[in-house]
Amino acid sequence: MKSLEEKILCEGRAIGTEILKVDSFLNHQMDVRFMDEIGAEIARLFAGRGINKILTVEASGIAVACAASRAMDCVPVVFAKKAAPNTMTEGFYSAEARSFTKGTVSVLRVAEKYLKPGDRVLIVDDFLASGEAGVALVSLARNAGAEVVGFSAVIEKKWQGGADRLRELGIEVKSLAVIAAINDGKITFADN
Amino acid sequence: MKSLEEKILCEGRAIGTEILKVDSFLNHQMDVRFMDEIGAEIARLFAGRGINKILTVEASGIAVACAASRAMDCVPVVFAKKAAPNTMTEGFYSAEARSFTKGTVSVLRVAEKYLKPGDRVLIVDDFLASGEAGVALVSLARNAGAEVVGFSAVIEKKWQGGADRLRELGIEVKSLAVIAAINDGKITFADN
Repeated sequence: MKSLEEKILCEGRAIGTEILKVDSFLNHQMDVRFMDEIGAEIARLFAGRGINKILTVEASGIAVACAASRAMDCVPVVFAKKAAPNTMTEGFYSAEARSFTKGTVSVLRVAEKYLKPGDRVLIVDDFLASGEAGVALVSLARNAGAEVVGFSAVIEKKWQGGADRLRELGIEVKSLAVIAAINDGKITFADN
Repeated sequence: MKSLEEKILCEGRAIGTEILKVDSFLNHQMDVRFMDEIGAEIARLFAGRGINKILTVEASGIAVACAASRAMDCVPVVFAKKAAPNTMTEGFYSAEARSFTKGTVSVLRVAEKYLKPGDRVLIVDDFLASGEAGVALVSLARNAGAEVVGFSAVIEKKWQGGADRLRELGIEVKSLAVIAAINDGKITFADN
């Protein structure tokens, strides 16, 4: 997605060899008009697959998921929770995921009633790094008997291997911008 | 907002005297088409106030904030974070807030560069209960020298006092549905 690559180059900040900050438009401050372009692109990439649900994880995935839903006839969005609120009183699916940026392990949970056999699920997130969250979301959906149609991240950090991990699970991965490397503040995109 | 009250009565579940579950459309599974109606109503309630930024807190506030932004010419959304990621490397404002549903205390943080003197900020959230998160967000915005134009929650639990706390701080509060009481599974709306 050319406009996304341009936005990353214009507004993103590469730190060291691992961290890309895009908090001006994606995951702290959010550019809602641009988010809708992102949603439309995700819908285009997975058109015609009979997707009836979008699954993501709190917090930064939520805006991406809502934008994609809007471009897909408003299919329901479900976000996995990282902590069990006292309102989660019934059965739920759970899976563990480490956070790359926070150094913590979370248990992701989705209430059983919101993932069903027969669901055709698209998983979306803001970043695809090592794939921890993505693998956990796949596991949640498959435990529910749902079909995972694909995975779409806004930004993939290719060298961290998450896309390979998901593809090994048989998941079709399409990221909107794929970054091959970050070095001395320089961002290099992969051909994708 | 009549359609919201109907949706709460139809899909919501009252538990005991304190908890209202609306996870089928607002804060676990999300109905994006209805979320846009919510956003349009928030925009209508605060029309003409020169709002140039919407502030919320992760996670459930994000979809509400994005929907409101969409109805307000896509003003930027900023969501406060409950944990400091390793990408938050620069100065930030912070304020403590207890969570009613999780029984935890979080430090809410917003990077300094995304709240500025001169900003006219609307704060939104999915729920207004005791007002802990709202008061913390007001404090963040005022520490930045921004003007808090108002606060809008999708659902207010009136008896928990959050609206009163915010009004004591001089904040205009407009919730889309105000619940007076929950008893034996029965939801009673306040006249608002």
